[in-house]
Amino acid sequence: MTKKLILDLDTGVDDALAISYALGSPEVELIGITGTYGNVLLDQGVRNSLAITDLLGHPEVKVYKGLPHSSTTDSFEVLDISAFIHGKNGIGDVDIPDSNREPETESAVDFIIDAVKTYGKDLIYVPTGPMTNIAAALKKAPEIKDEIGKIVLMGGALTVCGNVNAWEEANISQDPDAADYLFRSGAPATMVGLDVTLQTLLTYKETQTWRDLGTKAGAFLADMTDYYIKAYETTSPHLGGCGLHDPLAVGVAVDPTLITALPVNLKVDVEGPTRGRTIGDNTRLNDPVKTMQAAVQVDVPRFLDEFMTRITGLAKNAQ
Amino acid sequence: MTKKLILDLDTGVDDALAISYALGSPEVELIGITGTYGNVLLDQGVRNSLAITDLLGHPEVKVYKGLPHSSTTDSFEVLDISAFIHGKNGIGDVDIPDSNREPETESAVDFIIDAVKTYGKDLIYVPTGPMTNIAAALKKAPEIKDEIGKIVLMGGALTVCGNVNAWEEANISQDPDAADYLFRSGAPATMVGLDVTLQTLLTYKETQTWRDLGTKAGAFLADMTDYYIKAYETTSPHLGGCGLHDPLAVGVAVDPTLITALPVNLKVDVEGPTRGRTIGDNTRLNDPVKTMQAAVQVDVPRFLDEFMTRITGLAKNAQ
Repeated sequence: MTKKLILDLDTGVDDALAISYALGSPEVELIGITGTYGNVLLDQGVRNSLAITDLLGHPEVKVYKGLPHSSTTDSFEVLDISAFIHGKNGIGDVDIPDSNREPETESAVDFIIDAVKTYGKDLIYVPTGPMTNIAAALKKAPEIKDEIGKIVLMGGALTVCGNVNAWEEANISQDPDAADYLFRSGAPATMVGLDVTLQTLLTYKETQTWRDLGTKAGAFLADMTDYYIKAYETTSPHLGGCGLHDPLAVGVAVDPTLITALPVNLKVDVEGPTRGRTIGDNTRLNDPVKTMQAAVQVDVPRFLDEFMTRITGLAKNAQ
Repeated sequence: MTKKLILDLDTGVDDALAISYALGSPEVELIGITGTYGNVLLDQGVRNSLAITDLLGHPEVKVYKGLPHSSTTDSFEVLDISAFIHGKNGIGDVDIPDSNREPETESAVDFIIDAVKTYGKDLIYVPTGPMTNIAAALKKAPEIKDEIGKIVLMGGALTVCGNVNAWEEANISQDPDAADYLFRSGAPATMVGLDVTLQTLLTYKETQTWRDLGTKAGAFLADMTDYYIKAYETTSPHLGGCGLHDPLAVGVAVDPTLITALPVNLKVDVEGPTRGRTIGDNTRLNDPVKTMQAAVQVDVPRFLDEFMTRITGLAKNAQ
């Protein structure tokens, strides 16, 4: 049976690539996108998700509004660095038409819970922003931790430094308490963090392939991603490309053999100077049951090949 | 050919167990012990190493005095917590006779360099205290990084929290700059950190086996280790035993298949709030050459079996 996929996105550039990867993967059916905040405000991300799924020829994908700010704050503002990396509109300041669709009236949290009840072990949930929505779903319906197929999250940094500061990765940093709640919940989760996503890099050479397709979708993906690559030239010049954070999480959701994963009971530091750090929970080090896996190595050539094949195929056959 | 082994020790309780493991391992020849500071003052550790090798029936093992304090300080004092864990004399306040031998006149740093020149790839160097001596040797004779067989160090914490604070492990904490120098030197090194050493636990049941041997060596090892286990009951009650930190490093030096290791170019944070943390160096993340390995999993039953077999055999045939 085809696995059912939910993407939880703060739809910026690599989130858009994650949507493309999912829609280009016949092994999974994208049954919905739940919106979160982070790279952009909630409403901008929801707008982007609707517009992108239209442009990519998949208006059947429903989009749900999630929570607009972290579990410990009353509001959220986009950081300057996020706007620098993703553009003010989140998608590299590339102009694409608004969808004529509206987000669903059901909340993201309720949709996640209902999807677990409907699809159970066939459901894969992939959050690539803060863990606010899934933590709220787990608080509202704790039993889903045992019912869900798996969670593959983009976030955290276990064996490498963070990208907000030396110990904090951006997604976890937005809501450390929500991430810690997920990590300690017992839900089966794979962390796809900077350990691996900073190894999977895209360059202008690959985006040119999309531009050469001659489709609107190809031009959009190329222009948007070029903006992102250019930002990386400033923020991480040593890399020589942009990190494929969110699409790698989708890649791992579709094919876990792309990574080597360490079984480990993780937590998030929520107090002290290292607030926001993802790390093993020493008090559960010798628990024989490991509910989480942390990706520590990745088959870079194979992932990049899958990435280009799937997204190029999708963009070729779209508008 | 039998591998040659140098242990670099701040001879406390688990250092004494590391000596025992090495002397009980026919695969390696312990050609010398270099003294460092940490669990105890340099001179106390040197005294302990001489007395212990005598008691274990190996007075042929030479002991060399290393540097008495870190590369960035002028002096060293034993921390209260070290005395609590290892006893004031470093070996659980158990009284054993002084050796009638003196330490060698050659310095530890020169001995390390000479041993590399003599044995080359057949030499394994195992530091289980601060990295001060090996960093000094690498500064004095940088070419030894390419000539040495391997370094297997006990220290650091990559996927788990530290034991000094949330991010610092005790050995690295004593001299973060020296450890960072080693990690960035290009020398082939395996980090055996808290990730694995807090999984290999000893209890009173095993120490009783040594006491039952009826030898002086067995009684010493049992009494000394019981002091250490008792301290762990206060400092880490959730573990249910004491961590076999230093002997695990020797175990890995003798048989690397005891662990699963992640190839990773490590560094030590020497600035900022996380000074003393061991972590991947993001600027070398995509360097195809990995000069270090970090132990992330360990075959606990097999190591404990090797540990007991080797040390019990040694203690049975000693005084």
